[in-house]
Formats: sequence, C-alpha cells, structure tokens
Amino acid sequence: MEFSLIDRIRERTAQGRDDVRLGIGDDAALLAVPAGQELAVAIDTLVEGVHFPQGTSAADIGWKALAVNLSDLAAMGATPAWALLALTLPHADPSFIDGLATGFAQLAQPYRLALVGGDTTRGALTLSVVVHGFVPPGKALLRSAAQVGDSVFVTGTLGDAAAGLKLVQQHANDTDARAGYLIDRLNRPAPRVAAGLALRGYANACIDISDGLLADLGHICASSKVGAEIDASLLPRSSALLDLFDDAASRDFALSGGDDYELCFTVSAQHVAAVQASLARLGCGATRIGRIVEGDRVRVRDAAGQWLEPEHRGWDHFGA
Amino acid sequence: MEFSLIDRIRERTAQGRDDVRLGIGDDAALLAVPAGQELAVAIDTLVEGVHFPQGTSAADIGWKALAVNLSDLAAMGATPAWALLALTLPHADPSFIDGLATGFAQLAQPYRLALVGGDTTRGALTLSVVVHGFVPPGKALLRSAAQVGDSVFVTGTLGDAAAGLKLVQQHANDTDARAGYLIDRLNRPAPRVAAGLALRGYANACIDISDGLLADLGHICASSKVGAEIDASLLPRSSALLDLFDDAASRDFALSGGDDYELCFTVSAQHVAAVQASLARLGCGATRIGRIVEGDRVRVRDAAGQWLEPEHRGWDHFGA
Repeated sequence: MEFSLIDRIRERTAQGRDDVRLGIGDDAALLAVPAGQELAVAIDTLVEGVHFPQGTSAADIGWKALAVNLSDLAAMGATPAWALLALTLPHADPSFIDGLATGFAQLAQPYRLALVGGDTTRGALTLSVVVHGFVPPGKALLRSAAQVGDSVFVTGTLGDAAAGLKLVQQHANDTDARAGYLIDRLNRPAPRVAAGLALRGYANACIDISDGLLADLGHICASSKVGAEIDASLLPRSSALLDLFDDAASRDFALSGGDDYELCFTVSAQHVAAVQASLARLGCGATRIGRIVEGDRVRVRDAAGQWLEPEHRGWDHFGA
Repeated sequence: MEFSLIDRIRERTAQGRDDVRLGIGDDAALLAVPAGQELAVAIDTLVEGVHFPQGTSAADIGWKALAVNLSDLAAMGATPAWALLALTLPHADPSFIDGLATGFAQLAQPYRLALVGGDTTRGALTLSVVVHGFVPPGKALLRSAAQVGDSVFVTGTLGDAAAGLKLVQQHANDTDARAGYLIDRLNRPAPRVAAGLALRGYANACIDISDGLLADLGHICASSKVGAEIDASLLPRSSALLDLFDDAASRDFALSGGDDYELCFTVSAQHVAAVQASLARLGCGATRIGRIVEGDRVRVRDAAGQWLEPEHRGWDHFGA
C-alpha cells in the first residue's frame, strides 16, 4: 500500500529537481539547500471530520493537505521545494488513493514541488504534510515584525470557506454557481505563494488566515506586541458570499471563519502603493482593512464607527 | 492544547542551536544547513494498536516516535539535527501530554536535537515525526550499494522487540528482569546513530531493521540487485530471548520480528576488521551473519547447512 500511493504521487510531481540528490526509496531523502538560502519548514495535519467534512472527495483532500502547508510557506515568503506525506487510511482503496494522489499532484505541479518522502499507515483518515521551502537569510516575513502605524492588508476575499462549510453542512444545492464557488473555496484553497514572494522586502509582518482573521491577526499582535484596529466595512467579501448570506453572517464569516488561507500582512506607509500595485498584477489583490496601533488587542469598528462587542464578533474563544 | 504540548517538549530539548534561525511560533521554522552538508529527511508515523500496543505508557510512545525516525537517520549515516511532530490525540490529557514530552525529550537531549515545529489535532492517537540530519555529499549509506562478496552484519541482537511484544500480548510478568528487558527493547529502542556515523566510509549498503531482518535485507538486495545468504546459527540473540523462548521461536523472532531498529549493513573484505573494532568500541558490537551473493533472494541456512523453507522462516508475506 505504502509505495503504491507514494509512487502514484511521485509519478505525477516534479522529477529531476537537481536539489533532490536521493528521493523516495531509501531510509531518508537526501536534499541540497541552494547556497545562500535558508530552509523554511512547516507541518500541518488534516483529520477527517475536523479539518474537512466527511464526504469530501479524495482529490479535494489531497489538494487541501498540501495547500494548507504551502500557505504556511507563502506566509513566510518562501519558495516551495519539497514535501513529505504521512497518510493514515482506514483501508487501502485504490480509487481513493488515486484521487488523493491526483489532487495532491495538481497543486504540486505548478510549484515544481517534489514529494521526497512518505509513510502510509492504517487507521482513521489523517494526513500530515511537511513542506520545505527556501528563503534568503533575513528576508522571511515574520509574525513579529508589525510596527505601530502600519496598514493591515488581506489578500483576496474573506469568509468564503466558512460559508462553504455552512453550505456543505446544510446539504446546499451546489449546482448553484455561487454555492459551488464557496464550497470550492473550502475544498480547494489556493495558497498565496506568489503574493508571499512579492511581499518580501515590502511587508513587515505576515500570517496566513487559517483560524480566522481575528485569531490570526491576534497572533501578529501578540508576537509584535502591538494592537490592531479593523474596519468591518472594509472587509473584502465575494459577491457569492454577499448573495447567499446576509450582512451580519457574511461579516462574521469574514472576521472569524477559518480556512480561507489568504494572507494578512502589515505594511508601512512608504510601501503601500508598491504592494497594492504588485498584488493587483498577481490577480489576487490586496485590501487595506485597518491599521496597527499601540496596545495588545484586535478591535473591530462597524460602518458607523462603533466598536463591536465581543459577543457580536463570533470569536469569543479568542478573548476580548 | 497545541502550544502546551509542543512547548513542553521544546522546553526540554536543545535550545540555542545556532542553525535554528527561527523555531516554533511562526508559520514555519527557519533553518540553516551547514555549508558542505546535505540534508537527510525522513518521516514515520506511529498509530496506537498498530505500531505500539494499547496500554503503552505515554513516555514510551514519545520516545519511540522519535526513535524510529532517528533510526532512519542512523541507517543513512546522518547526524540528527531537527525534528517536527504532528500529534493527533483523542483528548487533551495533561499528564499524558507531559509523559509524551518527557519520553520524546529524553531521547532528543543527548543528540541536541531541536524540536522546530509541530501541530496538534484531535482524533485517534497517531504521531508523525519528521527528522532532519546532516551528511556530507556522497557519504550517505544507501540501500543500493551492496556488492557481491560483501559480508552482511547486524548491530546488537535481533528478535528482542518481537519477543517483547509477545510478552505484552500475553500479559507476562514484567517484574521478571528478562521479560522487562525484552519489553524495554520494544518500547525504548535505541537508534544506532553513533554506529551509522562510524560506518560512513566503511559500509557499502545499510538499512535499519524495522520490518524484520529478512524483509529489510530484502530491500537492500532489491535496491542493489544482489542476493544474500544468511546463517541462522550466526544470528545474535540476547540471553533474555534465549532464556524465555525456545530456539525455533527465538530464531523466527530474529529473522522476521520487526521493531528492533538495529542496523543491517554490508562491508567489503578490506573493511571488516575496522568495522568490527569500531562498533565494538561503541558498545553495540557487530555480528557477521552472512554474505552478499549474485541473485535476487535472501536465503537462510540452518546450523546443519540446510536451506530453510519459506514456511519455516515466518516471513511468507515477503515471498520466496
């Protein structure tokens, strides 16, 4: 079982990277980090029923397991290079394994990412992926580098994945193009790798939005020892989200829904124009949603300028 | 939950490795591979009830999850440096987490291994560990480098872990020192890192024995396109194993029991004396058990010089 899965992915992903000195098939892979580069390494696990709903297709699971990890590299401004996959499966179903391999490889290919190691075991469906990327010393985007006065930006639109999950849970009709779009945002997140690379040298702090904007911006604030003020009216929301959910629900999804895998980053005034132009060229755009202030809290203001109370923010778990 | 576990391990493992530029706490770790070294990377997963029996102590689980991975680095002749841990747990039990952290750290400390990343999720008890080590280019010990005429060696003794598992399954009295020894060999395997380093430049092929001698030596043969002949009478067996099990059972454990995490390696005639002296100094010893021949099979001879039939080898799954 082990080699059939791993080999199926390997066959479909980058061959012949000359930094892979020895790939799958021995006790360990042998890899060469290019001179003058540091290695960025991240690991994330997806468990069925926790990180993706039961019934998610094998291909979507394979894609997402890699996507959430590439998103971590994106948030560091690192160039993806290699991955390892630890897969636990209840039984060896060839079509399921083939689907997983297909989804994983579809995302890996454009990045020339090489699968260099893997392990397959029997048990409840769980995928742990480790990704390795390269970043020049001192150029990584850290959570800890936000400065008071920075503008806070996010890429793309927020809340789509949480709305997609709601629709899946409601067994919504996904032949509706808008519902299909939101569910696709849940199942096939597109890690913002190109945006992360473009932000090197321009953004101060950066994080990817996996737990929800308020939680993840809160991580930037905690690491940087600053606060943040967000204007709810500035949150970028897709037309599909605004069509299918009312303003309050879509705002809550945008503030505290997780799984969007957009980047949240802070930029000092002199770089704002360059960042906006650069990300517009990449097609994902970047929206200014607030600013970094002194303090230690993330506060959210509504369109009338009133601070929202925690119970209206949908993120009580995060503290006030 | 996530940070409490990961932090507990981090607190107890190497701080201040200057090749860890950024450790746990951001989207990815930032690491610097020393100039002139390649990176060896391996991943292995342990699932409760599959890779360790239910009832195994948390500390033993934490130790073993790291040990099986360090054993992969040992088999490559790599120096351990960094690890990441993905842990899936049914519920957050502080004493269990503390035990895991203790066992993991006990093994990590002597290697100055730094935990640089982790992820904790909820689900059936599963641990995936990724280890990174260093090896000079061209010096790694590969499965594919066995030569006809090489002697086949193993470190330590074989069959102890499989015997230990049998005793656990039989609810044996582990106050018997011999039973305790065998169960400890199952729960606390000592990866042969120093032996792997000592073999660089001397051994041709090397693998660690996780699936059992015959299966793992079979991997060397398949990768190297050679065969092997083993003398069952030469298999190193501990006195505890020989005391508690009869000759046939202990031979089967030694041939096909997994989980020993000893090294199996091949050495050309001119290096045999140097290897034996070197591993004797390390205290694990090395026993010559057979030789590499032309062909594609692993064959086993009994003390009378008769080839054992597959049904007597206990490794039918491996093919004849």
